[in-house]
Amino acid sequence: MHDLRDRILAEGQNLGGGILKIDSFLNHQLDVGLMEQVGEEIARRFSRYKPDRILTAEVSGIVPAAFAARALDNIPVVYARKHKPITMSEPVYIEVAPSHTKGNEVNLMVSPEFLHSGDHILIVDDFLASGRTIEALARIVRNAQAQLVGISVVVEKSFEGGRLALEHWGVPIESIVEIVDMRDGKITIAN
Amino acid sequence: MHDLRDRILAEGQNLGGGILKIDSFLNHQLDVGLMEQVGEEIARRFSRYKPDRILTAEVSGIVPAAFAARALDNIPVVYARKHKPITMSEPVYIEVAPSHTKGNEVNLMVSPEFLHSGDHILIVDDFLASGRTIEALARIVRNAQAQLVGISVVVEKSFEGGRLALEHWGVPIESIVEIVDMRDGKITIAN
Repeated sequence: MHDLRDRILAEGQNLGGGILKIDSFLNHQLDVGLMEQVGEEIARRFSRYKPDRILTAEVSGIVPAAFAARALDNIPVVYARKHKPITMSEPVYIEVAPSHTKGNEVNLMVSPEFLHSGDHILIVDDFLASGRTIEALARIVRNAQAQLVGISVVVEKSFEGGRLALEHWGVPIESIVEIVDMRDGKITIAN
Repeated sequence: MHDLRDRILAEGQNLGGGILKIDSFLNHQLDVGLMEQVGEEIARRFSRYKPDRILTAEVSGIVPAAFAARALDNIPVVYARKHKPITMSEPVYIEVAPSHTKGNEVNLMVSPEFLHSGDHILIVDDFLASGRTIEALARIVRNAQAQLVGISVVVEKSFEGGRLALEHWGVPIESIVEIVDMRDGKITIAN
């Protein structure tokens, strides 16, 4: 995934405080060709674990998750909702996660209609930072008595410790690009 | 698009008040294969208008837009944000739209970085009901001095009048499936 790495280095903006702006291909504008490559790479790394469903959170995890699902023989994607639409039936699985880029806490809600006991779940998200969004998703998987088989993110900021925080789930954690340092305005990617 | 029509009839729930629940393939769980078909159909109907960018709104318009963009030689997709992340630079184009399924009003925000004077914009969204979300997106296109070339939605509820409300934009409006009546708990689709 040299393309993703190159795009982060060329277009990513280090806004300070560990915030990476990659709005030109992932978080506001989407480069669909690049997202398809990312999804195929996620599928390549996790097909051996035979996920039969992907769980992500709205908003920016959805497109990488959709292309990963497409490359995994069109398994279903479920995206946790942050704002309950009136079409969402109760009861729901609900966990709280902090928002890294909004500065508040958000609810993550998943309907039991789409997450079942025994499902093999791959969690996909755009970023792994502190790991707390993914922790909340993993708890939802556990609450549904489904089986977590892996965690995949597009960009990991490994200096924020999320991987360590998620280790207790005992599943493989993969990132497509790992950023190891963002001090002094730099963006340093692991090779 | 008989598949989409069949799925709406088999799985759609008429919740009353014109609210259609199709959470099992579009609004919470995603059927990625079906969304790819939808995206390809949108591309087939609009390629002649040579859009060079798709504008949609988070959340549920994003995946149909992404697959349409893929089928249109990977043109960029921009999704209007409803909640401003700290990565979003100001100034932004902003319009207010009512939310049909949340019962409140939402801001739709697009960064001028990703919408330029002279761009040829195709608007894609999941639903056309009253047309007010798409009206807000079209105003953003106009405010950016970009050129709107078409409007495409996955599901039109034609009894809510959105098509008429959007006619003044003078562009083709296409829906993949048109629902003509939801009275008395029924879901009646135009053939």
